[in-house]
Amino acid sequence: MMFVAAWFFQLRDSLRARFEALERTAAGRERLDAERLDAGKPGLFVLTPWRREEGGGGEMALLREGRLFEKAAVHVSHVYGPVPEALTNGGGGAAWENLPDDALFEAAGISVILHPRNPHVPAAHMNTRHIRIRTGDGGEIRAFFGGGADLTPMLKRYRDENHEDVKTFHAALKEACDTHPAVDYEAFRDWCARYFHLPHRGEARGMGGIFYDMWQSGDFDADFAFTKRVGESFGRVYETIAKRRIGTRWSEAEKREQRKWRGRYAEFNLLYDRGTRFGLRTGGNVEAILSSLPPDALWR
Amino acid sequence: MMFVAAWFFQLRDSLRARFEALERTAAGRERLDAERLDAGKPGLFVLTPWRREEGGGGEMALLREGRLFEKAAVHVSHVYGPVPEALTNGGGGAAWENLPDDALFEAAGISVILHPRNPHVPAAHMNTRHIRIRTGDGGEIRAFFGGGADLTPMLKRYRDENHEDVKTFHAALKEACDTHPAVDYEAFRDWCARYFHLPHRGEARGMGGIFYDMWQSGDFDADFAFTKRVGESFGRVYETIAKRRIGTRWSEAEKREQRKWRGRYAEFNLLYDRGTRFGLRTGGNVEAILSSLPPDALWR
Repeated sequence: MMFVAAWFFQLRDSLRARFEALERTAAGRERLDAERLDAGKPGLFVLTPWRREEGGGGEMALLREGRLFEKAAVHVSHVYGPVPEALTNGGGGAAWENLPDDALFEAAGISVILHPRNPHVPAAHMNTRHIRIRTGDGGEIRAFFGGGADLTPMLKRYRDENHEDVKTFHAALKEACDTHPAVDYEAFRDWCARYFHLPHRGEARGMGGIFYDMWQSGDFDADFAFTKRVGESFGRVYETIAKRRIGTRWSEAEKREQRKWRGRYAEFNLLYDRGTRFGLRTGGNVEAILSSLPPDALWR
Repeated sequence: MMFVAAWFFQLRDSLRARFEALERTAAGRERLDAERLDAGKPGLFVLTPWRREEGGGGEMALLREGRLFEKAAVHVSHVYGPVPEALTNGGGGAAWENLPDDALFEAAGISVILHPRNPHVPAAHMNTRHIRIRTGDGGEIRAFFGGGADLTPMLKRYRDENHEDVKTFHAALKEACDTHPAVDYEAFRDWCARYFHLPHRGEARGMGGIFYDMWQSGDFDADFAFTKRVGESFGRVYETIAKRRIGTRWSEAEKREQRKWRGRYAEFNLLYDRGTRFGLRTGGNVEAILSSLPPDALWR
């Protein structure tokens, strides 16, 4: 599955180039809010490779304090080796249960988190991954894909099913899903709504998107093509929406509202997000895991 | 146990008066940072009573955007009735296990969270509670106290065992513990260090204090006197430390560092704090529970 991992790294490069180009074309911050912000330089991703002792590793790519993005992350990883115990004792879910003692795994994936400066530009997240579990002598036990993409507008007036940005985003994901004969877009969209939900507030984290896990149709080539499509569509549709909103000036009250919704975002990630909680409890790369947190938050 | 509950409400009144007096004597914000902040009015607590359908209720008291405190909470509650199912199926810990079906409980407590504006003034937390569990016909099954107090300095140079403020804080708690012949101060201090710990960062939340749960010595009067002493000592020692630091000017970099530590504080409360997680998952008063979160946070 080397070529699958290689493709995630390629997608990372193309998204990084896309987001850095957006940074260059975006006006400096002084155009948006002359009174309160310095002129900003276009942001650049800083790459930090990391190695995993048991096998594999990855690269974090973080952009901080850019013009368009206050914080953006595009992380990739390709890890393999014996199945970690933390996954098999219930912590990893059904995919990791009832495995032989000598089971090996291989996982590759990408994780994108975008927290723009301008409250009119939505935050967004996308990740896709491919996982294979084998016996010690190489026999395949199971292989599956997982992932998702969702949009989190940071002003109440954009948090509306009928808002142009929300419709554009859902339409792009629907189109990506429709390229695969076995993908049920509505099911993936419902899954997303159930997952990105804050029960204690009775509130959705954002306006949804798609979410799927432990998924495979039986046709590897089609599944991989779908995974590619989700990543590419996400990059394109986010660029479309960002360009639509980047020139809109914001008020102090709108910045404050953005930081309030960012607080909800942090609540979700720390209270409920499986990847975050699981990663932190099992000694994952803390910096990579917590880079999903918003650049700031407000609970007043 | 009406008189125990009544005492928690009295402590609330006295702490509220103490903190509001500190607000009045503290200089307006313009004295501290003329360039960036408006003059502030002394903050006042706003009281919000709430009722619990199954029996009892409480009062939230929140002070927002004061001179000394960016956010301060002094909440009290007195609740009773049949033991909630969420507590008996493992979620409440050992105290709530193996109870008869008709068991009744009664719980009273106070919870104080202080997030000052000035990064030189430490954040702090104190809570004490008394719980009684009885059979349906009134026979006592068990009764115990719980609580704790801890100090969270928001600048690295104050996060030092040998710093004057830290020593003053620990000395006050030691003195409170020493008034009770059966309280082991060192054990309560160790318990606190173990509890307020962020394993994913290998880091303490703050500089510790004391922590205890399901605790009773067999002498109710002495235990109740100790509980009172913890609450009163906390109020006094916090005032001493706050007065020592309130006039210190701060820099932009120090405010930024405070907001970074506030991020760690939010991580602890949302990832690990038993009260927060349990309360949110069992339909507690969301506003009261989340008022322990800092007024803002930074993850850049």
